Amino acid sequence: MSFTPTPDDRFTFGLWTVGWQGRDPFGDATRPALDPVESVTKLAELGAHGVTFHDDDLIPFGSDEAAREGHIKRFRQALDATGMKVPMATTNLFTHPVFKDGAFTANDRDVRRYALRKTIRNIDLAAELGAQTYVAWGGREGAESGGAKDVRVALDRLKEAFDLLGEYVISQGYDLRFAVEPKPNEPRGDILLPTVGHALAFINELEHSELVGVNPEVGHEQMAGLNFPHGIAQALWHGKLFHIDLNGQSGIKYDQDLRFGAGDLRAAFWLVDLLETAGYEGPRHFDFKPPRTEDFDGVWASAAGCMRNYLILKEKAAAFRADPEVQEALKASRLDQLALTTLSEGESLTDLLADRSAFEEFDIEGAGKRGMAFEHLDQLAMDHLLGARG
Amino acid sequence: MSFTPTPDDRFTFGLWTVGWQGRDPFGDATRPALDPVESVTKLAELGAHGVTFHDDDLIPFGSDEAAREGHIKRFRQALDATGMKVPMATTNLFTHPVFKDGAFTANDRDVRRYALRKTIRNIDLAAELGAQTYVAWGGREGAESGGAKDVRVALDRLKEAFDLLGEYVISQGYDLRFAVEPKPNEPRGDILLPTVGHALAFINELEHSELVGVNPEVGHEQMAGLNFPHGIAQALWHGKLFHIDLNGQSGIKYDQDLRFGAGDLRAAFWLVDLLETAGYEGPRHFDFKPPRTEDFDGVWASAAGCMRNYLILKEKAAAFRADPEVQEALKASRLDQLALTTLSEGESLTDLLADRSAFEEFDIEGAGKRGMAFEHLDQLAMDHLLGARG
Amino acid sequence: MSFTPTPDDRFTFGLWTVGWQGRDPFGDATRPALDPVESVTKLAELGAHGVTFHDDDLIPFGSDEAAREGHIKRFRQALDATGMKVPMATTNLFTHPVFKDGAFTANDRDVRRYALRKTIRNIDLAAELGAQTYVAWGGREGAESGGAKDVRVALDRLKEAFDLLGEYVISQGYDLRFAVEPKPNEPRGDILLPTVGHALAFINELEHSELVGVNPEVGHEQMAGLNFPHGIAQALWHGKLFHIDLNGQSGIKYDQDLRFGAGDLRAAFWLVDLLETAGYEGPRHFDFKPPRTEDFDGVWASAAGCMRNYLILKEKAAAFRADPEVQEALKASRLDQLALTTLSEGESLTDLLADRSAFEEFDIEGAGKRGMAFEHLDQLAMDHLLGARG
Amino acid sequence: MSFTPTPDDRFTFGLWTVGWQGRDPFGDATRPALDPVESVTKLAELGAHGVTFHDDDLIPFGSDEAAREGHIKRFRQALDATGMKVPMATTNLFTHPVFKDGAFTANDRDVRRYALRKTIRNIDLAAELGAQTYVAWGGREGAESGGAKDVRVALDRLKEAFDLLGEYVISQGYDLRFAVEPKPNEPRGDILLPTVGHALAFINELEHSELVGVNPEVGHEQMAGLNFPHGIAQALWHGKLFHIDLNGQSGIKYDQDLRFGAGDLRAAFWLVDLLETAGYEGPRHFDFKPPRTEDFDGVWASAAGCMRNYLILKEKAAAFRADPEVQEALKASRLDQLALTTLSEGESLTDLLADRSAFEEFDIEGAGKRGMAFEHLDQLAMDHLLGARG
Repeated sequence: MSFTPTPDDRFTFGLWTVGWQGRDPFGDATRPALDPVESVTKLAELGAHGVTFHDDDLIPFGSDEAAREGHIKRFRQALDATGMKVPMATTNLFTHPVFKDGAFTANDRDVRRYALRKTIRNIDLAAELGAQTYVAWGGREGAESGGAKDVRVALDRLKEAFDLLGEYVISQGYDLRFAVEPKPNEPRGDILLPTVGHALAFINELEHSELVGVNPEVGHEQMAGLNFPHGIAQALWHGKLFHIDLNGQSGIKYDQDLRFGAGDLRAAFWLVDLLETAGYEGPRHFDFKPPRTEDFDGVWASAAGCMRNYLILKEKAAAFRADPEVQEALKASRLDQLALTTLSEGESLTDLLADRSAFEEFDIEGAGKRGMAFEHLDQLAMDHLLGARG
Repeated sequence: MSFTPTPDDRFTFGLWTVGWQGRDPFGDATRPALDPVESVTKLAELGAHGVTFHDDDLIPFGSDEAAREGHIKRFRQALDATGMKVPMATTNLFTHPVFKDGAFTANDRDVRRYALRKTIRNIDLAAELGAQTYVAWGGREGAESGGAKDVRVALDRLKEAFDLLGEYVISQGYDLRFAVEPKPNEPRGDILLPTVGHALAFINELEHSELVGVNPEVGHEQMAGLNFPHGIAQALWHGKLFHIDLNGQSGIKYDQDLRFGAGDLRAAFWLVDLLETAGYEGPRHFDFKPPRTEDFDGVWASAAGCMRNYLILKEKAAAFRADPEVQEALKASRLDQLALTTLSEGESLTDLLADRSAFEEFDIEGAGKRGMAFEHLDQLAMDHLLGARG
Repeated sequence: MSFTPTPDDRFTFGLWTVGWQGRDPFGDATRPALDPVESVTKLAELGAHGVTFHDDDLIPFGSDEAAREGHIKRFRQALDATGMKVPMATTNLFTHPVFKDGAFTANDRDVRRYALRKTIRNIDLAAELGAQTYVAWGGREGAESGGAKDVRVALDRLKEAFDLLGEYVISQGYDLRFAVEPKPNEPRGDILLPTVGHALAFINELEHSELVGVNPEVGHEQMAGLNFPHGIAQALWHGKLFHIDLNGQSGIKYDQDLRFGAGDLRAAFWLVDLLETAGYEGPRHFDFKPPRTEDFDGVWASAAGCMRNYLILKEKAAAFRADPEVQEALKASRLDQLALTTLSEGESLTDLLADRSAFEEFDIEGAGKRGMAFEHLDQLAMDHLLGARG
Repeated sequence: MSFTPTPDDRFTFGLWTVGWQGRDPFGDATRPALDPVESVTKLAELGAHGVTFHDDDLIPFGSDEAAREGHIKRFRQALDATGMKVPMATTNLFTHPVFKDGAFTANDRDVRRYALRKTIRNIDLAAELGAQTYVAWGGREGAESGGAKDVRVALDRLKEAFDLLGEYVISQGYDLRFAVEPKPNEPRGDILLPTVGHALAFINELEHSELVGVNPEVGHEQMAGLNFPHGIAQALWHGKLFHIDLNGQSGIKYDQDLRFGAGDLRAAFWLVDLLETAGYEGPRHFDFKPPRTEDFDGVWASAAGCMRNYLILKEKAAAFRADPEVQEALKASRLDQLALTTLSEGESLTDLLADRSAFEEFDIEGAGKRGMAFEHLDQLAMDHLLGARG
C-alpha cells in the first residue's frame, strides 16, 4: 500500500497550522507570515483535501471591506485552481486583548455582543465557501481565580450564545452545524467545558442541540490525562462527533500540537482503528504546529508526516482487524459476549431476579479465576503496529 | 463561631473511610477491622449526621442469610441508639476477583448479570434503611489496553444496567435516586465516564434520566487536573448534583483520599462557597482515607478534621460574601454584567445585527484596555481565607 | 503584625514580571511596555528591596553602544534615587529565533559561541551593578523529538559553558555565583536539567562547582508534580540554594507564574516555614506574571499580593513553630527521634550487628501498631494557616 | 531477525513481577501465590537470563532459620538446574506495617535500626547468590503532610544508612554495588529522592559514593512527566547507570507497571536506542506487573511480551542508526556540530572574547532563519519504528 495521500482521504489543515510563525510564550516568531494562497497551493500538492480557517487567518484583523473582499477573492481563486475544499471554519475569539476575559462568557456584556457579531459575520463567509461545520473553541472562556467567574451564570451566557447562533443558522437556511472544541486549560487557568464529556453534557441543554456536536482535539483531552479514543468513542455513541482535530501531545503539559503520530503513538493507532471502523465520514483535520525549530521545508515535512502517519496506521489497523489470530484473541477475551445484551431478548427484570443461576447459584469463585487474555490480544496489536507479524 | 459539628451540618462518612485498614499496593493493613457499630457510635459522638456503606462494608462478602440479618440488626440498633441516618448506600463491585474486568460492562455476560443482582439486593437494603441516594462508582469499568474493551458497546451495556436499575426502583416505589461517581483511572488504566462531564452526558441517554445524577469526588476530578468547583458548578447547572464526596488530593497522581481541606485548600474554599450559596441541600459526605501511618486516635482526628475544615471554610466564605469591599470588587470585575443576558429583554437577533454599537462602532481597542481587577478580588479572597482581614 | 513590606524583607522582582505585556501563545499583548525606571520606582514604593533583569529587559535587543549606555545610566539613576538593589541578573537566551534550538547546547556551534559572549557581556554589567547571583535558565536547551539532541553530548557542552563562565568570573575577580534554574518543559517539549535534582547532580561535575548552585522556581517543580518544599530542603541540604523564584502554579499544566500564594497555598506555607527556619539569607525573589486580564492597577495589586502573602505566611509559620501544642505534637510524631543518629555515638556497625534488640528480639508487630499522629499535627498546621486557633 | 530471547540478551525479571497476585487498592488477589521455583523454571524456558528478588519474595516474612534455609536451598537448585543467574537483589522495606513511616528515614529510631539489619541480612544472601547489584527503593521514605518529616534531617539519616551499608559491603569484601531507585510518589504522598536527578545528587554526598549508582524505572520517571531516555542519558553521563527497571506507564497517574513497550512506545524506542549504543552492559531488568485481569497464561504472555518488544525495538533502532538517509538527516540537523567542543582545541576564553565573528559580526538574523530539520529526522525514526521504510 502507498502512504501517499489523495483528496479522497479527506485530509484537511487549518491555515493557522502551517502558517504558525513560531511565536511562543518565551520567543519571537521564527518564520515569516505565510500567504494563505501559498498554503492552499502547497497543501494541495501534498495531497490534502481542503483547508479550514479562522476569520483572522484569512482576513487580517482590522481590514476594511475592500481589503476583506480582496483577500476572499484571492483565496477563492486558489481553491478553484487547486480543487481544495473548505469543510470547516471558525472564529478567532482569543487573540485580540478585547477577549482577555472570554468572548461569549466575558464579564463585559459589550464584549459578548461583539463576539457574537464577529462570529456571525464569519458564519456567513463559511456558508458562502461551502463549509458544513463551524467550530467553536472557547479558549478564553474561563478564569485563573475562583471569584472571577460565576460558572453557572457563565454557562447561561454560553447557552444564550449557542442558542442565538443556532437560530441564526436556521434563519439563514445554512447547511452548517456547530462543533464545540473542549480544552481543559491554556491560555486560561481553567477553561469552561474542559473535556469532551463536559461539552457533550452542555450541548444537551441547548435549544438547537441537534445542530451542535463536538470537535475533540487529541492533545486537549490528553492534557487532562484522558484516553482520547475512549472520549471519541463516547462522542460517537452520542452521535455527536461532528469534526475532529488530529495532532500529537506528550502527556500532561502545555499544549504541544505536535504532528499526528508524535506523542502517544499507541493511542493514535487505536484512534485510527476507531475512526475507520465506526463510520466517521468527516474530514481528518490536522490542528498541529510545526515546531518553531523548523523552516518552511520542515513545515511541509511536518504536514506531510501527519498524513503519512495516518495512512500507515490505517493500513495497520485494517490488517489487525483482518488477522484471524486477532479475531480468535478477541473471542478469547470475550468481546463477543460484551456485544450481547445482559438480559436475553424478551427477558424481564423479574425473570432476572428469578434466575438463581445469576446470583444464588452463580460460581463466583470460578468466574473470578477466568483470565481475560488481554495481554495476548494487546501484544498482537503491538506486533501489527510495529510490523513484526509473520 | 464554633467549629464543632452537629447533625444539622449534615456531615456523613462512609463506613469504609474510618474503617479503612491501610492496605495499599505496597503494604499490608496497619489497623484492625473496625466494627461498623463502633464507627456509627464514634462518628455520632464527633457530631456527624449519618453514615453510608457498600453492601460488603456492613455484611462481609459471603455471609449467609442469618449472618446477614444479624449484621443488619446490630447496625440498625446502633443507628437507633445514636440517631444517625443512612442517606446513601452503594455496591461493592470491585473488590472480588470476579469484577476484575468490570461489573455492568464486564466482557463476561454472567458477571454483568451477577453485578445487577448484587446491586439490586443492596438497593432493597438501602431503601429499607431510608437512603435516598444510591451511588454507583464503576471503578472497574474500563481497560488497560486498547483492544480489551469496545467502548461504544460497553456504554450500551452501561445504559442497559442503569435502565434496568431505574425500572427496578420505580417498580418498587422506592424514593431513591442514583448518583454516578466518575473517576479517570485507578484501579483501571482508564475508566469509563472519567469525569463529571462524561457522566452528565451519559445520563442524558438513559430511560429514566430524571432518576440519575452525579456524585463527584474532589480527588477524582483533580486526578485529571480539573477545577473541582467548576465541575460542581456545571453539575448544579444541569440540576444533577445529587450527592458529593469530599476529600483532599495533592494534584495529578494516585488517588489519595486525604481528609477534606488537605491538598488544594483554595479549591476547597471555593467549593464550600459554592455549595453554601447554590442551595445544595444534600449531605456533605466525606470519602477519605485516614493515612495508614495513623492508629485509631489518628483515624478519629482525621475524621474530625474533615468536618472542622468544612466549618472553618464555611465561615470564611460567608464572611467573604458579606464583606462590602468584596462586593465592590465583584462589581469592579463586572460580575454583575455577567449576570445580565447578552441580548436585552425583548431584543431579537435581528436587533443585535442592526446594532452598530455592537460591532461597526464598537471601540475594540478601548475595550481591550480595560482591566478586569481579578487580582485585587482574589487577594481579598486570600485575606479572608487566611484570616488576614481587618 | 503588619503585612506591609520593607526593604529589610529582601523582596525582589524581575523587571520582566511587572513588565510582562501579556503576550501568550494565543493572544497579543494587553499592556504597553513598562519603562524599567517606572518599575523600579513603583516597586520601591511598594516596599521592595530590589529588582533583577535579563540583559534584554534593560537594554532592548539590538541597541547600539550609545543607546545601551543611556539605558544603563537611567536605570542606575533610578536605583540611586530609590535605594533599590540589583542582587541578581540573568541572560535572555530564549526570545530571539537564533536560540530556537538552545543556547549553550544548540546544535549549531556558532550559536553556542554567541550565547557565551552574550552571557559574558551581561555578567560584566551584573557585576558592575553589584549583583551577587547570576541566574542561568536554560529554557531552550532541550528537544521535542528523540533524535534531535544527543543528551550526553549536550551535557558535555553545557558543562563546557559553565566551566568557561566560572573561569571568567574568577579571572575577573567578580563576587558572583551562578544559580541554575531547572524546568521540566515549556517552551521545549523536554528541557535538560528538568528538576532541582538533575541540576544539583550536574553541578557536581563542574570545574568550579563551588561557584554554582540552584535557583528553583515554585511553579517549575510543581509542573513535574514534585513537592516544592522537599526540593528546597534537598537543595539546602547540599548547601546549594543560591537563589529562589517564588510564584504560584495550579498543578501540572502550562507554566502559570501566578502571584506567590496563589496555586498550592499549603505548599507555600511549608516553603516559608522552611526558608525562615533554615537560615536562607538570599532575596525572596518573585518571578510571576500578573495575569493578562489586568491593567497596571492589577499589575501592582498582584505584585503587592506576592509580598503580602509571604509576610502573612511568615507570621503564621512562626506562630506554628512557637505553639506549645505543636511542639508536643511534633514529639508525639517522633520528629525528635528522627534528629538522633541511627547508630549511637561511638557505636560501630559491628555493635549494631550484635544488638539483638535491633533485630532478633525487636517487637516488629508492636512497633507496627504505633500510630504516627501525623493527622493531628497536620490539622494544627491547618488551624494556624487558617487563623482558626485559640 | 528472530525476536526469541536467549540468555545472552541478559533479560531478568523480579520474582515479584510474575509472582504478583493482583492485589490492588480496590481489589483482592486474582491469582494464587507462585512458587519461586516455578518462576525460575518458566522464565528460563522463555529465554530469560536470570531473576531478582526481595528477601521476602524468596523467604516468607517471619520464617524461622530452618524454613529460611529450605527456601534458599530449593531456589539454588532451581537456579542450578536452569542456569539462571541472580544479578540483583533488594530488600522489602515497605510491606510490613512497621515500615509505614519509612525504613532508613522512619521517625522511629528502632525502625531505622531494624531496617538496616534486615537489609544487611539480605545483602549477605545476595552476595552468596552472586548478585552484583543491590537495589534500594525507598518507597516509604516520605510523607503525606508537611510537618511529618524534616526533609534535611531525613536526608542525614538516609546518608547515614548508605554510608553504613557501603562500609559493610567493603568490610565483607563483597563485589556488590548499590543502585538507588527513585520514585516521586505512591505509596507515600511524596517520596524522598523523587527522580533520577535527586538520587544522583544525593549519591555525591555519600562516603562511598563510588559504590552507589541509580536504578531508574521507566514508569517512575514518567509519573513525574519526565522524559525517561533523557534521564537515563544523564545517569550514563555521570557514570551511574548501575541497573535499570524496564516497564510501561500511560502518563501521569498511579504506578501502572505495564509490560515493556506498553505505554509510551516512542520513548521505549529511544530508550533501547540509547542503551544499545551507549555501552550499557547491565541486565535488562523487567519490573512490571501482569495486569490482574490475567490468569497464568496471561502472566507468561505478558513476560514474553516484555522481552519480545525489547528485541523488536533493538532491531529497529539498529536499522535506524545504519540507514544512510538517517545519517544524512542527523547531519542536516547538525548533530555533528553538537559533538564539537564550543571552543576550538587550544582556544582560550580570551580568544573567544576577541573573536568578533562570534559576537560583534555574528549574523544573528541569518542564523535565526536556519531550519533544524528535526521533523524530517523524527519522521524517519517513525518510519523505522512502524516498519514503513523502503
